Amino acid sequence: MGRWEPDARGRLAKAALELYGERGYEQTTVAEIARRAGLTERTFFRHYADKREVLFGGPPPSLQDLFVRAIVEAPPATTPIDALALGLDAASEMFVDRRDFARKRQAVITANAELQERELIKLASMSAALADALRARGVPEPAASLTAEAGVAVFKVGFERWVAPGEQREMAPLMRESLDALKAVTAGGQAP
Amino acid sequence: MGRWEPDARGRLAKAALELYGERGYEQTTVAEIARRAGLTERTFFRHYADKREVLFGGPPPSLQDLFVRAIVEAPPATTPIDALALGLDAASEMFVDRRDFARKRQAVITANAELQERELIKLASMSAALADALRARGVPEPAASLTAEAGVAVFKVGFERWVAPGEQREMAPLMRESLDALKAVTAGGQAP
Repeated sequence: MGRWEPDARGRLAKAALELYGERGYEQTTVAEIARRAGLTERTFFRHYADKREVLFGGPPPSLQDLFVRAIVEAPPATTPIDALALGLDAASEMFVDRRDFARKRQAVITANAELQERELIKLASMSAALADALRARGVPEPAASLTAEAGVAVFKVGFERWVAPGEQREMAPLMRESLDALKAVTAGGQAP
Repeated sequence: MGRWEPDARGRLAKAALELYGERGYEQTTVAEIARRAGLTERTFFRHYADKREVLFGGPPPSLQDLFVRAIVEAPPATTPIDALALGLDAASEMFVDRRDFARKRQAVITANAELQERELIKLASMSAALADALRARGVPEPAASLTAEAGVAVFKVGFERWVAPGEQREMAPLMRESLDALKAVTAGGQAP
């Protein structure tokens, strides 16, 4: 191990996002990211496996871990949809004060088909983990899978609203609002 | 154009699925598929761009087209969720008598990460198209995107049930049942 670099991980992430934004994700090398951050490539690889992991590998606990844990730890009598709401709250907490980073990250991902695929895989994996957690609570199929898919749908739509230009509300209320909108729609609301 | 081959497209699809199942998707070549079907490579390429398109490129109209069209053509007063139900019905129609093919296709896709990604992209694209169709009907955001995501979630879960071993019910009632299960869950049902 080399000497300790204060917040090397955060500096690398910041440098990477700047460069992805300036020159494009494909055109940026790990060497350039390390140089911009004032660190060595070796330090980069102590924190991230590759340049894609800067976008997808946050420090633990992951979004999925937080989401799942909230569902696992919900009081026994909690309905599936209320357990989901607790999961969305927990997921939202990790994004507090991270909107600027999230917006830059989103712009990089939107510009690159391979990264969009990676994002879809991440969400599919989250859905499978949520369904597992719900089944472990005794929720039968297909309710468990449908609740999990609904959770990912609400997260996706709520996240898009949260990173939208000009949006200033925090993530948690936007997630709750999206969940309420889904409830209203499935109850037959929003007639034209 | 070469001479007309009776049901060349169907014979190629059948041969491809057999070979993907026997040797694996990666190990199968277009030449082998054509040979097994008793046709030429040239005939293969008149029907499919590559061996992946056998799994993803059905003849028009596509699943997405049928799903979207049903939503576009739903009577004006139809609620978003009822328009979605009409879309699921229309989507189900194209799978009548295709369960054997769908099961073999599913087994190939499940065994291959790249094909699973392609499937996720196809579903994400379908969700975007459904949201467009709902917005065109005057459904506001975030209701349009959430209804679209819910539609894809129900389709995904309903489809998995339909191809499950031993399942004999038709797709349309399984989709309706999945949609009803989603409605029940979002209404606070399925308490443990």
